[in-house]
Amino acid sequence: MSSPLRLGVAGLGTVGAALLKLLDRQANALAERTGRRIAVMAVSARDRSKVRDLDLARFEWFSDPVALAGSPEIDVFVELIGGADGVARAAVEAALQEGKAVVTANKALLAKHGLHLGKLAESKGAALGFEASVAGGIPIIKTLRESLAGNSISRVYGILNGTCNYILSRMETEQLSFAQCLAEAQRLGYAEADPSFDIGGYDTAHKLAILTALAFGTEIAPDSIAVEGIEQITLADISAAAELGYRIKLLGVAARTAAGIEQRVHPTMVPRSSAIAQVMGVTNAVTIDADAVQELTLVGPGAGGMATASSVVADIADIARGLHVPPFGLPMASLTPPRRAALQTHEGGYYIRLSVYDRPGAAAAIATRMAERTISLESIVQRRRPGEQKGASAVPVILITHATSEKLIGEALKDVLADGFIAEPPQVIRIERE
Amino acid sequence: MSSPLRLGVAGLGTVGAALLKLLDRQANALAERTGRRIAVMAVSARDRSKVRDLDLARFEWFSDPVALAGSPEIDVFVELIGGADGVARAAVEAALQEGKAVVTANKALLAKHGLHLGKLAESKGAALGFEASVAGGIPIIKTLRESLAGNSISRVYGILNGTCNYILSRMETEQLSFAQCLAEAQRLGYAEADPSFDIGGYDTAHKLAILTALAFGTEIAPDSIAVEGIEQITLADISAAAELGYRIKLLGVAARTAAGIEQRVHPTMVPRSSAIAQVMGVTNAVTIDADAVQELTLVGPGAGGMATASSVVADIADIARGLHVPPFGLPMASLTPPRRAALQTHEGGYYIRLSVYDRPGAAAAIATRMAERTISLESIVQRRRPGEQKGASAVPVILITHATSEKLIGEALKDVLADGFIAEPPQVIRIERE
Repeated sequence: MSSPLRLGVAGLGTVGAALLKLLDRQANALAERTGRRIAVMAVSARDRSKVRDLDLARFEWFSDPVALAGSPEIDVFVELIGGADGVARAAVEAALQEGKAVVTANKALLAKHGLHLGKLAESKGAALGFEASVAGGIPIIKTLRESLAGNSISRVYGILNGTCNYILSRMETEQLSFAQCLAEAQRLGYAEADPSFDIGGYDTAHKLAILTALAFGTEIAPDSIAVEGIEQITLADISAAAELGYRIKLLGVAARTAAGIEQRVHPTMVPRSSAIAQVMGVTNAVTIDADAVQELTLVGPGAGGMATASSVVADIADIARGLHVPPFGLPMASLTPPRRAALQTHEGGYYIRLSVYDRPGAAAAIATRMAERTISLESIVQRRRPGEQKGASAVPVILITHATSEKLIGEALKDVLADGFIAEPPQVIRIERE
Repeated sequence: MSSPLRLGVAGLGTVGAALLKLLDRQANALAERTGRRIAVMAVSARDRSKVRDLDLARFEWFSDPVALAGSPEIDVFVELIGGADGVARAAVEAALQEGKAVVTANKALLAKHGLHLGKLAESKGAALGFEASVAGGIPIIKTLRESLAGNSISRVYGILNGTCNYILSRMETEQLSFAQCLAEAQRLGYAEADPSFDIGGYDTAHKLAILTALAFGTEIAPDSIAVEGIEQITLADISAAAELGYRIKLLGVAARTAAGIEQRVHPTMVPRSSAIAQVMGVTNAVTIDADAVQELTLVGPGAGGMATASSVVADIADIARGLHVPPFGLPMASLTPPRRAALQTHEGGYYIRLSVYDRPGAAAAIATRMAERTISLESIVQRRRPGEQKGASAVPVILITHATSEKLIGEALKDVLADGFIAEPPQVIRIERE
């Protein structure tokens, strides 16, 4: 058996603690599978005195993760600190500078500095593994980088944030409001005290930026992503989706279109019979459309200490086995700047919920405005809410359009608004088909 | 860029033809991704004169695949001939003997001779790739062998045969008989003229044997698999499953139990809300239960030329990149003979459909026989079929049991039969829970 692979682990939160336990538990199996023992030599965390369910006395302690990253005692630096900049970035750069392999679960770091870090790793001949940075325990990075090497990918999309999916799932199954489900998610530890990063779609956007680069061989471009969160989704939308054969999910979508690479994060109507619609609770899922394999979907835990540690260990095992693949699946210089498709050029179906003053001819006028923009309707539903009286000031009108463009939808809605039939701003949700 | 990776391709059926097209189409992308050009040097097939939509003049022609396998002009032998023995086996052995890498889609060969071939490959330092042998385009081999290296797997199960899943899906959605759906599948080319290998569960068993070895680090043991096909599934079962919240799938299941490794292929009731229940038509799916990642499901095309070629190319790309992992994820000598769990020790829920003479006390007597064996019932439904008259000679009684053992079910049914209430042999279908 070869010499042990020596690790330094920085960050002992949920994932870091789970990683140390998993490496202990699987020590013999990993040695057998990789041909090397995997030995944690040193650790670093913000607070040494914090009570942890871990025996840390075995490891050298570094109060400075950057010093740990540069230590000659380690071969692999495992970064589980988090944050796009600051000490996480400094430590990862220090390790790569020394030619050490880096394994990280840090999506923010990758989304912001992945291009720079990939080039640094390449120039030093060092491995850079980040399986754990997207969709927790789901092996989506390896699948895109290795298993689909013979494919041309046209679209990758998925449920990449468990908090949002939990909230949307609970709203539907329990008929609770967004605010109630968010409070519940916070109570259960699925949502942060400040949940805006998750529910605003920004966490999904970081992960999507990484997937886009891998799928299309483009430089990471998080600023090209159109981001909308789930804060505006109401029970009325959830119920209307169910009635019309859809379910609402927060999706990250990257697609190759005639106009360029589309990257968008937003609440999405997916057909109720689709694989992605079945994914409930904190589970994540990613679907890839590609020319040879056609459609491939991976479903699994998107977060959690052990599930994320499983992906960290997968990267470590690859390094122990001597498997070395470029971080983004091809030489860094071959990554091309993405030709950004503006959201205005997006083509697809739309769900539109309007609150319409209950006057004769309102629905007909709306349908006419759509027709004037050549938008064809799959369905139009005007219905009073149960218990509502005829003559109520406003009634919901719900439209589902066939494929059209974002630009035409915007123009048609502007006309509808100008007609004065509408009591509230329209709710518009894009439809994503399999 | 390094020297080209030179391939010899034996077998130019659906997969072989798709592979040649895919390698052409992706030639530049593959060179960029792997750092080497991938060059088909020579091909072999049974009938040179067969009209194919391929330009074969570019390649050297071998009428004998064994000669192709030994040719000094190739680095990788791609075996797409099929069959557990005969020329496919001889050619693969010849290539490995020469230290050449082998990529194969041949599940029968792997299931029967995988242990021998793995040892031969290991002794010669040659790669042996077989991603395409299980579940077509789904990267289940790499996921088990690499992505889950840090996990202890407790169960792997899946829909591994598109023909059976197509038939069962059609029976439900179109309310057609097994025979009608089989005929339709044959007309569409989803089923062979002699369909017994697929519908009898043997194809699934070959694939399961390979997955079991990878999941549990055991020697391949196809003879340890209990195999039942879908021939006996009736519309009555499909409908009863739907009513009771289940769906019937042909599953291959390998599980680590107290009694040893269970390997079984049979029609299975799965909860209608489970991910695997949503997989319809010719699509395949595999779910893995493991200690760290918990539950991971991969869904994709289980057959088809291009989807299977996608997996063949993944193996070729790994070889071009110089990634070398033991065929079964650990040294061949570390594979242990599986401790076989007898099906009699299987524990789980059961669906039992009985045709009961319509006499007072029949249902009560059946329930009593179950209780005598400590089998607890989740539900018992006795209902006349629509249009059936009271006093009809036999009525269906359907039982769903809580977890119990195969042995107790057998004993209880023996008693029920002896009571003389039963008009036909009972239909028993095991339930598999998430």
